[in-house]
Amino acid sequence: MRKEHDFLGEKLVPDEVYYGVQTMRAMENFQITGAQLDPDFIQSMAVVKKASCLTNLKTGRMDPVIGDAIIRAADEIIEGKLLDQFPLDPIQGGAGTSVNMNMNEVLCNRALELLGYPKGRYDIISPNNHANMAQSTNDVFPTSIKVCLVRKAYRLMDALSSMAKGFDEKGEAFKDVIKMGRTHLQDAVPITLGEEMDSYAVAVRRGIRRISLSLSSLEALNMGGTAVGTGLNAEPEYIRLFPEILSRLTGFSFKTADNLIDTTNTTDCFADVSGALKVVSLSLIKIANDIRLMASGPRCGLNELKVPARQPGSSIMPGKVNPVIAEVLDQTCYQVIGNDLTLTLAVENGQLELNVMEPVLSFNLFHSFLYLTNAVTTFTEKLLKDLEADEEQCKSWVDHSVGVITALLPHIGYEKCAATAREAYTTGRPVREILLARKLLSESAIQKILSPYEMTHPGIAGGKDALAR
Amino acid sequence: MRKEHDFLGEKLVPDEVYYGVQTMRAMENFQITGAQLDPDFIQSMAVVKKASCLTNLKTGRMDPVIGDAIIRAADEIIEGKLLDQFPLDPIQGGAGTSVNMNMNEVLCNRALELLGYPKGRYDIISPNNHANMAQSTNDVFPTSIKVCLVRKAYRLMDALSSMAKGFDEKGEAFKDVIKMGRTHLQDAVPITLGEEMDSYAVAVRRGIRRISLSLSSLEALNMGGTAVGTGLNAEPEYIRLFPEILSRLTGFSFKTADNLIDTTNTTDCFADVSGALKVVSLSLIKIANDIRLMASGPRCGLNELKVPARQPGSSIMPGKVNPVIAEVLDQTCYQVIGNDLTLTLAVENGQLELNVMEPVLSFNLFHSFLYLTNAVTTFTEKLLKDLEADEEQCKSWVDHSVGVITALLPHIGYEKCAATAREAYTTGRPVREILLARKLLSESAIQKILSPYEMTHPGIAGGKDALAR
Amino acid sequence: MRKEHDFLGEKLVPDEVYYGVQTMRAMENFQITGAQLDPDFIQSMAVVKKASCLTNLKTGRMDPVIGDAIIRAADEIIEGKLLDQFPLDPIQGGAGTSVNMNMNEVLCNRALELLGYPKGRYDIISPNNHANMAQSTNDVFPTSIKVCLVRKAYRLMDALSSMAKGFDEKGEAFKDVIKMGRTHLQDAVPITLGEEMDSYAVAVRRGIRRISLSLSSLEALNMGGTAVGTGLNAEPEYIRLFPEILSRLTGFSFKTADNLIDTTNTTDCFADVSGALKVVSLSLIKIANDIRLMASGPRCGLNELKVPARQPGSSIMPGKVNPVIAEVLDQTCYQVIGNDLTLTLAVENGQLELNVMEPVLSFNLFHSFLYLTNAVTTFTEKLLKDLEADEEQCKSWVDHSVGVITALLPHIGYEKCAATAREAYTTGRPVREILLARKLLSESAIQKILSPYEMTHPGIAGGKDALAR
Amino acid sequence: MRKEHDFLGEKLVPDEVYYGVQTMRAMENFQITGAQLDPDFIQSMAVVKKASCLTNLKTGRMDPVIGDAIIRAADEIIEGKLLDQFPLDPIQGGAGTSVNMNMNEVLCNRALELLGYPKGRYDIISPNNHANMAQSTNDVFPTSIKVCLVRKAYRLMDALSSMAKGFDEKGEAFKDVIKMGRTHLQDAVPITLGEEMDSYAVAVRRGIRRISLSLSSLEALNMGGTAVGTGLNAEPEYIRLFPEILSRLTGFSFKTADNLIDTTNTTDCFADVSGALKVVSLSLIKIANDIRLMASGPRCGLNELKVPARQPGSSIMPGKVNPVIAEVLDQTCYQVIGNDLTLTLAVENGQLELNVMEPVLSFNLFHSFLYLTNAVTTFTEKLLKDLEADEEQCKSWVDHSVGVITALLPHIGYEKCAATAREAYTTGRPVREILLARKLLSESAIQKILSPYEMTHPGIAGGKDALAR
Repeated sequence: MRKEHDFLGEKLVPDEVYYGVQTMRAMENFQITGAQLDPDFIQSMAVVKKASCLTNLKTGRMDPVIGDAIIRAADEIIEGKLLDQFPLDPIQGGAGTSVNMNMNEVLCNRALELLGYPKGRYDIISPNNHANMAQSTNDVFPTSIKVCLVRKAYRLMDALSSMAKGFDEKGEAFKDVIKMGRTHLQDAVPITLGEEMDSYAVAVRRGIRRISLSLSSLEALNMGGTAVGTGLNAEPEYIRLFPEILSRLTGFSFKTADNLIDTTNTTDCFADVSGALKVVSLSLIKIANDIRLMASGPRCGLNELKVPARQPGSSIMPGKVNPVIAEVLDQTCYQVIGNDLTLTLAVENGQLELNVMEPVLSFNLFHSFLYLTNAVTTFTEKLLKDLEADEEQCKSWVDHSVGVITALLPHIGYEKCAATAREAYTTGRPVREILLARKLLSESAIQKILSPYEMTHPGIAGGKDALAR
Repeated sequence: MRKEHDFLGEKLVPDEVYYGVQTMRAMENFQITGAQLDPDFIQSMAVVKKASCLTNLKTGRMDPVIGDAIIRAADEIIEGKLLDQFPLDPIQGGAGTSVNMNMNEVLCNRALELLGYPKGRYDIISPNNHANMAQSTNDVFPTSIKVCLVRKAYRLMDALSSMAKGFDEKGEAFKDVIKMGRTHLQDAVPITLGEEMDSYAVAVRRGIRRISLSLSSLEALNMGGTAVGTGLNAEPEYIRLFPEILSRLTGFSFKTADNLIDTTNTTDCFADVSGALKVVSLSLIKIANDIRLMASGPRCGLNELKVPARQPGSSIMPGKVNPVIAEVLDQTCYQVIGNDLTLTLAVENGQLELNVMEPVLSFNLFHSFLYLTNAVTTFTEKLLKDLEADEEQCKSWVDHSVGVITALLPHIGYEKCAATAREAYTTGRPVREILLARKLLSESAIQKILSPYEMTHPGIAGGKDALAR
Repeated sequence: MRKEHDFLGEKLVPDEVYYGVQTMRAMENFQITGAQLDPDFIQSMAVVKKASCLTNLKTGRMDPVIGDAIIRAADEIIEGKLLDQFPLDPIQGGAGTSVNMNMNEVLCNRALELLGYPKGRYDIISPNNHANMAQSTNDVFPTSIKVCLVRKAYRLMDALSSMAKGFDEKGEAFKDVIKMGRTHLQDAVPITLGEEMDSYAVAVRRGIRRISLSLSSLEALNMGGTAVGTGLNAEPEYIRLFPEILSRLTGFSFKTADNLIDTTNTTDCFADVSGALKVVSLSLIKIANDIRLMASGPRCGLNELKVPARQPGSSIMPGKVNPVIAEVLDQTCYQVIGNDLTLTLAVENGQLELNVMEPVLSFNLFHSFLYLTNAVTTFTEKLLKDLEADEEQCKSWVDHSVGVITALLPHIGYEKCAATAREAYTTGRPVREILLARKLLSESAIQKILSPYEMTHPGIAGGKDALAR
Repeated sequence: MRKEHDFLGEKLVPDEVYYGVQTMRAMENFQITGAQLDPDFIQSMAVVKKASCLTNLKTGRMDPVIGDAIIRAADEIIEGKLLDQFPLDPIQGGAGTSVNMNMNEVLCNRALELLGYPKGRYDIISPNNHANMAQSTNDVFPTSIKVCLVRKAYRLMDALSSMAKGFDEKGEAFKDVIKMGRTHLQDAVPITLGEEMDSYAVAVRRGIRRISLSLSSLEALNMGGTAVGTGLNAEPEYIRLFPEILSRLTGFSFKTADNLIDTTNTTDCFADVSGALKVVSLSLIKIANDIRLMASGPRCGLNELKVPARQPGSSIMPGKVNPVIAEVLDQTCYQVIGNDLTLTLAVENGQLELNVMEPVLSFNLFHSFLYLTNAVTTFTEKLLKDLEADEEQCKSWVDHSVGVITALLPHIGYEKCAATAREAYTTGRPVREILLARKLLSESAIQKILSPYEMTHPGIAGGKDALAR
């Protein structure tokens, strides 16, 4: 054990660990979830620290030997080492100060070690004076969240892109599968299964654009704002240089916020991102539910789609198979929507110069990205790729339907159509038969108008010329 | 116009109106929703004012002539008069002070008039000194909300009670309609449509109990707490006497809160009530959605239920009818759930001695009760009473199903059942045929085990004795 | 009374009204909220109908005499006439069919009247065949919502723009008011009140951009999709021509959606807009709460700001004035956030070819825009314009603070600063005195470093050259 | 590796693990969160399985040798062994079938082992036929959730009870600390700090009752309902005997649900429990925020309370200490409220005979209990126990306040009080001085009326007799 102290007093720290007294205090103070900090986030913060140190070297404020050692330590974290040195609970008080100090302590102690000093010699390399130079938790923490979110967002967009491609393929595969369109869960007019799949691809791609757009809310950096956004202790040169260094390290185009005080005291940028995920989730729920509906059966449902059998569906009902993959996507989306409310409350509770609720905010946003990425990929790989149509069943529904009568509307008017429809429903007789019996249209006209192609594409089925106005 | 003043200065008030200067200011300050105050709420507050005045007469603090006039004015409001004298926007700042002063002004001016004085003679009867005697907005406003909620809750419970009875009737009517049970939207085992209807009746009645239980959160009154709950300016005798007087006037058993400071500075009691409505809404959504699913069709859906045709369902699709009544119940429930979030935020934002967000809180809670009561009654009257089963369709689904195989589980074990089921799904052959071909059970055993009664009631279908362990 | 019928039967309609049988049915079916349809929305739908009729004239499908009469009827609605002919409850089943048919009936009956026919002669001008030509509720209703939202959005953005200007002015007025910055509600480092006001202006303008951006989700029109998005009964020429006609009529640049099936079966575009309002609300809550905090007092609070006295604040506490305008903004924002949840549930519950929950969706979104616009304007006019600073009080807090010690960090390091700070807190002695006593810095250095300007602007207070590394 | 199979085919299972083929499939299918199943929940399910097996032994359906082995296996899990044999992701499709089968497989394989057979010999002891005898996931899974929630609820109620006691102690300790009461963050009338603390104790205890009450929603068991609630394959005797056996094992009084079909197809009971936690969270947020407000400072805030210093509060501001423990309670409560929304969506999405969203539902509810219990305990231990009052500061605020004037209301009326108050605010002169100058009351009357005791307790300060009506 080594002795460390801060202004609240001394504390023994196990000699093998790289974190120090402040991390120890936070470990004692916050035992809420039992969860770990997101490794992505730790690495993102290490990148921010490295960028800051490089900037401090460039402005000449940082001692080159110390700066070099801190950068080497940061690089190790970026490479995935030392991740077990961040033992803090993600839900914590203090607006991230504990995580920032945990990082500062690890960087210093590893840097000290690299330079041949024992851990804890903060008189040589100090967590507050060196690792945190020209910084405050209040700029480092949100900046690191932003870097982390960008990384995660690209993974989610990739997953969604694969899903969209999966729907493209099904759109092509099912393009000739005529089926009944339904509104209000009631028979409407025919559509093709391919058109439905294509529409899902469009919705998923809109989700990608939505996330991409929300990232623009993250590009404005807090760095240089320090404690309250006024930039106390950060030189103008530092503020000017930092973004391009971080952009270079991350490959994403960051810039300094136009107003650092605003950027320090607000967190609405994160609500934009979480809101985008919420809307994406709503699209995905709709798609998953449609597939669950169309795959209802296998004997007593719509039975238009067959989802691949991934596992036995019941402990008591032999042979049962359920659409478990669509269900897990639904549930993940509910989680994302709930997480968005937690984040909403966190954003709502910013006060004066800072929003201190950033820990729970980031905890939920990181989860939302992770879970959604996994669930989307699961859906694509385990369900969508092997999704099959029951073409015969689809056709059979259309053949028995009355809704096709809508195609006759421009030809014989709403009233006669409606009367025919009601007769069909009441008597159970086929629509064509009634039309002929009522002498509303000739057999050839009916044939032409009710062609599947015409009914599933824009235009007046049977042609405008056939209209008697 | 008459001249009135308060400590911020003078103001002209139209002579015909009963409200005064403070109401005028609030009308100017708050133009947010364009909505009106709930008449129920105005009347509930009048009851509270009357009870307070009666109490002040009893303690001897109120001049009998003035008190009597105030009570007569309050009675007029209780009878439904003067409701147009409350012109304030329900979403307003000031924690209800404007509404309380509006009431105080109307009571005073009407009392003055009844005693032959001109309006505005507050030197004779004062809104603050008389109508508000021993009171503060901070106890009157939440107390009035509580009285109002109790009134509204009984209406909603009545509506739910009628709905439950409606389901009882359908439970009886459909008790012999065997149909396919579905889990995961996939065929499970048979059930009767009557059993489903009965289960909805149970869920609705649980909702009634839930609301009833939540009312216990409202019985503890704020009156006597005055400004911050310490009871400054309210005599102990007043505090002791008030609840029984209000209870007598309202027919609901109120009592003084054990800790008036707590009751003044918290609003979680309202979150209990709104939370109950939220859960009731979840039950109703489930029921409405089940009915929408079972009524899907008329040709290309499950088609087990027929909902009454209430209006043409489409401007373009002739003859289409939709389950619009179930849909409006769903939507109303979404509104209640959203309102609960608004209320949640309002409750969250109480600070120190008061929650100043009570106006938006009560606005939403009143809406939730009103809308839900209407939607429940609409559902009962316009859908449930005329709901019909398609018994033949229900039977047909069961006859074609494979899920009945579950009844064989205790007899031949999961493995053989599962193999039979998979063969049925793959080949399309009937379950019975496969069982016989595989010599798994005799024809008579199958007949016995797959009896509809046995499959829809507890126990081992075919009898325990038939089990070969 | 006149007799009208639809395929469900006959119904008597009062002869003076312009709506017809289907509106009558819907009035009976939906009595939920007691609220009215938004007049903006009715007018927006009239614009859509006019644009559609113009398009049908252009494609040659519409009879010119009938078309002209329908357009004249639509123009009357657009000018604000006939708005009382739309008596439906905004929360209704049927995905807007009732509203669309109400509009079709009013247009037809007014057109009939203009042409000299009695109302109800649908054999001459038909609600379904003429007013609804090439349309379906499923494209008209969401298109009308979009037009309406754009109108409302510009009003809200104007209101926010005035608010932002208001903060600009206060930023300028308070630019020399040095005050204590606070994080965690604890003393941090100095800032100017002007910087805070400027930061609010930035946040409000970001809100404007957020709303503006979300409008791009609305530009893709549904028209031409008709019943399920396949375009049945709408000619390609109609689809091509419609957007430019609507764009011309509205002054907003609309286009036809790339995939009409997607646009018909999804409503996530509305979730984007509501989500933007939610985030804007979060920003506004933060601002309102900051002002409430800084204006706390008048004797026993922070007392840094003075909000204008708009009304007496208490029925019991004489002379009390509350920040009621900030409170009403808060409450309105809670309403917007709750409405967003209702909308979220509505969007979540789309199924297959349509989302039938659009009525409650639009009801909430329209409210959110209306309420927020009003609350923002109220805040600007009734609070912000007359907001004053208590400069002396602000200065006095800074003079007594310890947080200024942060400016010394680069000069003497974290450890010595912390020790000094703790001594100051423990003993109550001024920071400067302790620094001198501990001989940590010269009097002139202290003077230079703790200059208000330096402490509230980027950089190392006292200059980088003064640093002893 | 051993070979196992289910009706979807064969699979290799590592020989050392106790789970089998179905668990393996679920592991592959569901990789969403990376989180573990709650150990409490696994143990609760083991208790349910044990109770079921005991019941099956009693009804004579279970072979005693097999039953005994299964019970021994269950007991091991109950004692905390084998918990690493449950590798499934908590968010999963399939309504818990995977978890139930995981449990069935572990119980069987361990039972086989105990009887000297190799794992995988399901022909001897079968997961479906023996471990799951008379059960379905659809009754086992929700029953296990209920058992688990009861366990967790008692822990949370204990934690809240300690918190309430902590507030009792502070109520006693601060009972003579007179301080300014504040409404709208504006000076109101005096109160004691002890009264505030007592009011928090009351709110916390109401939370305990709320949770306790919500547990009554959990007492009705699903067991015996099996697949869809009809009880297929569960003998009436089994259904009758099970609850008392489970009650004996758990010490909580369970009973069979009155309507098993309802209990199977609904999950609103869980919404009751989550709703209770939400409201409790709202109370806790209010308390934490009040303490953060009252502890604002240390120089530039209200400074009425001193929270214990638990860790340095800033990486840049030396000596800063923040109320981190109150902040972490706030954040945890936001999480609980967000989790409640996820659960709300899960409950909303039940369909027909089952709610398949139970995995995400239970995941969130378990988290809410765990996090809240920890955060409450943390608050009590790390903040509340060492909370101190700054009595002098409290007194100083009151001495400078104007709000005390309210006590004069019954004596001199609202108008004169208001005029005095406005003069005091405008001139800065003390209230007493103005009262004397205006000759409104004698010095001795003022002395009597403004006594701290009188102002903080019910009644007319100075006595009713002193009133000149």
